[in-house]
Amino acid sequence: MIVHLASFTWTPEVTAADVAGLTESLTAMAAAVPELRYYQCGENVRLRPGGADYGVLALVDDQAGLDAYLDSEAHKQVYADWLSWMIDTRHAVQLESDGLSVARSEQPEN
Amino acid sequence: MIVHLASFTWTPEVTAADVAGLTESLTAMAAAVPELRYYQCGENVRLRPGGADYGVLALVDDQAGLDAYLDSEAHKQVYADWLSWMIDTRHAVQLESDGLSVARSEQPEN
Repeated sequence: MIVHLASFTWTPEVTAADVAGLTESLTAMAAAVPELRYYQCGENVRLRPGGADYGVLALVDDQAGLDAYLDSEAHKQVYADWLSWMIDTRHAVQLESDGLSVARSEQPEN
Repeated sequence: MIVHLASFTWTPEVTAADVAGLTESLTAMAAAVPELRYYQCGENVRLRPGGADYGVLALVDDQAGLDAYLDSEAHKQVYADWLSWMIDTRHAVQLESDGLSVARSEQPEN
C-alpha cells in the first residue's frame, strides 16, 4: 500500500467558499478514481497551533494506482479549476505502508 | 480518530545518516507513546516528481491523544536532537477520520 500525503497553504485571496468548492470537487474526483483505496481531504482542523491550511491522505495499492489517481482527467480538472490558483505552498510525500486498512467500504466516501 | 500529517523539507547540510538517525529516534519515540494508534515516518519514496523530503502519518483517538504525543518528553527530545536543525520547511495538518483502522497490532512498529 502506498500512502500519499499532501498539504497546502493558500494564497491570501482564497475564501471559505473556495475551500468548500475544492473539497466538493476533490471528493467527487476521488469517487471517480477506482484505484483509490482510501481518500480523505479537508481543512486543517487545527488541533495544534500553526500548520498548513489543507490536507489530503490517499491510499493506493502501488505506483500504477498512484499515477492513475494523480494523472486522471478528474484530478487534472480539479487542479485547473481550484488548486492551480489556490496553492501558495505545497508539500507532497509518498510512504510505503502495510499497517493501515480501510475501515469502511473501499470506495472513498465524503 | 484524528489523522496527523506532517511533512518536512531539509536544510542543505542534512545527510542520509542524519535522516536514518531521525527515523530511528522517531520510531523509538512512537513506541513509547501509548496514545499513538498508528505511527509511520520515513523519507519520501518519491513515486512522483518533486515533493517534500520526509513524511509522518500518525493516528490518535482525539485532542488529548494528539497533545500527549506531540507534548511528550520523547517527542520534544527528537525535536531537540534532530528536527530543530534539520527542518527547512514544515507542513502539519490534522484531519478527523473514521475511515481508517490499523491493520497490525496497535503498538506502532518500525
